Amino acid sequence: MKTIVLLTDFGNQDHFVGVMKGVIYSITPYVNIIDLCHEIPIGNITKAALVLKNSFKYFPKESVFVVVVDPGVGSDRKKLLIKTDKYYFVGPDNGVFSYTLENSKIIKIIELTNDKYWLKPISNTFHGRDIFSPIAAYIINGINIMNFGNEINSYKRLPFINPEFNKNEILGKIIDIDKFGNLISNISIDFLNKYLKVNKDKYLIEISNKIIYGIKDFYSEVKQGEPIVLVGSTGMLEVSIYMNNASIILDTKINDPIKIKTML
Amino acid sequence: MKTIVLLTDFGNQDHFVGVMKGVIYSITPYVNIIDLCHEIPIGNITKAALVLKNSFKYFPKESVFVVVVDPGVGSDRKKLLIKTDKYYFVGPDNGVFSYTLENSKIIKIIELTNDKYWLKPISNTFHGRDIFSPIAAYIINGINIMNFGNEINSYKRLPFINPEFNKNEILGKIIDIDKFGNLISNISIDFLNKYLKVNKDKYLIEISNKIIYGIKDFYSEVKQGEPIVLVGSTGMLEVSIYMNNASIILDTKINDPIKIKTML
Amino acid sequence: MKTIVLLTDFGNQDHFVGVMKGVIYSITPYVNIIDLCHEIPIGNITKAALVLKNSFKYFPKESVFVVVVDPGVGSDRKKLLIKTDKYYFVGPDNGVFSYTLENSKIIKIIELTNDKYWLKPISNTFHGRDIFSPIAAYIINGINIMNFGNEINSYKRLPFINPEFNKNEILGKIIDIDKFGNLISNISIDFLNKYLKVNKDKYLIEISNKIIYGIKDFYSEVKQGEPIVLVGSTGMLEVSIYMNNASIILDTKINDPIKIKTML
Repeated sequence: MKTIVLLTDFGNQDHFVGVMKGVIYSITPYVNIIDLCHEIPIGNITKAALVLKNSFKYFPKESVFVVVVDPGVGSDRKKLLIKTDKYYFVGPDNGVFSYTLENSKIIKIIELTNDKYWLKPISNTFHGRDIFSPIAAYIINGINIMNFGNEINSYKRLPFINPEFNKNEILGKIIDIDKFGNLISNISIDFLNKYLKVNKDKYLIEISNKIIYGIKDFYSEVKQGEPIVLVGSTGMLEVSIYMNNASIILDTKINDPIKIKTML
Repeated sequence: MKTIVLLTDFGNQDHFVGVMKGVIYSITPYVNIIDLCHEIPIGNITKAALVLKNSFKYFPKESVFVVVVDPGVGSDRKKLLIKTDKYYFVGPDNGVFSYTLENSKIIKIIELTNDKYWLKPISNTFHGRDIFSPIAAYIINGINIMNFGNEINSYKRLPFINPEFNKNEILGKIIDIDKFGNLISNISIDFLNKYLKVNKDKYLIEISNKIIYGIKDFYSEVKQGEPIVLVGSTGMLEVSIYMNNASIILDTKINDPIKIKTML
Repeated sequence: MKTIVLLTDFGNQDHFVGVMKGVIYSITPYVNIIDLCHEIPIGNITKAALVLKNSFKYFPKESVFVVVVDPGVGSDRKKLLIKTDKYYFVGPDNGVFSYTLENSKIIKIIELTNDKYWLKPISNTFHGRDIFSPIAAYIINGINIMNFGNEINSYKRLPFINPEFNKNEILGKIIDIDKFGNLISNISIDFLNKYLKVNKDKYLIEISNKIIYGIKDFYSEVKQGEPIVLVGSTGMLEVSIYMNNASIILDTKINDPIKIKTML
């Protein structure tokens, strides 16, 4: 049983996601369809790119990811299928795959041009239904992907703002805020260990004009309501308030800076 | 692998939808269950009827649709199974199927009366769990539908307000607003082509005291923040604001009028 | 086809739930995964315990329930697998299983200690991904559960506040409010019949300084906007406003008292 994974900004109040599944099962009934997320803020390609990056490696080999966060739908933005050594990615060429592909081995990039595999009539506003879902289903059915269009050799990339290291200080920023209000930074534990490795309790973290002392291992090391910095489940440094919402309590937003120094 | 499709107003914060799936898989483990939508506004039969109408034809032949938007649960409203040439529809007789059945070939209408196929004890408040889910599962298992109750020959219909054509003007209304704030009218492209066919750029669309010029093909034909009229993915004329929420920006609600004229 | 049931407070705006499914399908592709609920209020163990109690018996025999409402993740709270005569329950030892287990026959309680079956590296913040999902998948694969850790003989229990009967009056409280605003009490129909059985129309129900007369059978026995008391689908007495939200209209919250007397 193979797997198709759906990632969209369609929400759950309309027929959009259900219809995509109907299209898929109409073409290939024996497949597991997983909802990765449908609550991406409307048109927020960066958030979709982060969710995909944080997730894809946990899915079975040969999974097909269908990503439809697509404000340019119907325009001349390209429609892509990207095959890596482990997965297939289907969706618009707007950068949504770029964080994921940074650490993947790309085998082929196909621009989807052959409408033989599309649903007719093709709407101009719902390529998730008419193009991307059928393509995913036909991949599961084993159609040779060269039939879907023409091989090309590039895809759109999002800028990835890496943290900076300067004068014994790491300067990063908040790139995501999860449902719990945890503040996810762009500083990975690997970056930290490379540039500024000291004992965990010797770090000073500055965010929103507050200083937090030390990096901890798990939430309940601090008291309820206290701030804590730890390595989150995606390998990035995160700022949390135990049993509360750090984004609200610290009044911190996406793109706000975070600095890491060490004690003297 | 056959398909059961669920459409309810149960939301996702309680056990209701999960329990329906538990009941189904307890009776028939080899079936794909698809969530069409569970965020229908509470008791809003019209919205559920529209979601079903916009969706059903994309699902595999012989899919069983279980629709539970059922403010009359436990009263003497009938419980129905409607078999068309392609699908099965199970739910309360409150009009929720009517837009879908307008363009379907009905084979049989069964009033569900045989409690042999229901879950005991039968609650008065959750027929989705106790009656409609088991019936759907037994259909998948191949039970002859005549066992479920008595054949009848009518079902409740919702009024469908068609647009009017008068003095070279189409007068329609907004019948749905999707997650993106797009305003979906009751004017289909077929109706438009029949009564008022001109070049796409010769239409004048009046909504909420604003005039929009021309019908476009895709969102990004206009600039961010500008209004646009196009044929949506369900074949109806829709009013959008590119990269914004038309319902909010134009202050337009369901049932508000929309007029279409042509330029002199 | 066996069943894994997921119950979390992860919501649907991030990658958490999707990733758990990816992990499961990577280990065992032929399994039905059901979302019981992911909108448990953050860290609300009691609500999760109620949702599980109201649901579990409707799922197929041998279903594996993975419950991740886990504010103590990463601390020394135990990680459990509880096998009953019908089901498996996997999650943190924080009381979330206790209402369900009150009426179940426990066969074995295993403290999960053998990291051979966990995902590496093990994060300190996402045991749903790294520990509980893989264990559930390996149960489906038929691994002997004694391999997962050590048998123990207790689990954490939540207090269950039963109603009181005193001076011909039942004193209960509201323990849950569902999506529709229905107020679910801790007074079961069995408790009522045992201590205060009279004709249905002879009850007086007092809640939020209002008196409601009689227990009804279904919502539409009263007019739109009127309060009604009936036996809900979980067997508990519920207070509703027909076609409206009782919690808002009656200004009633969880833990508010409800009294039942009989007419003279």
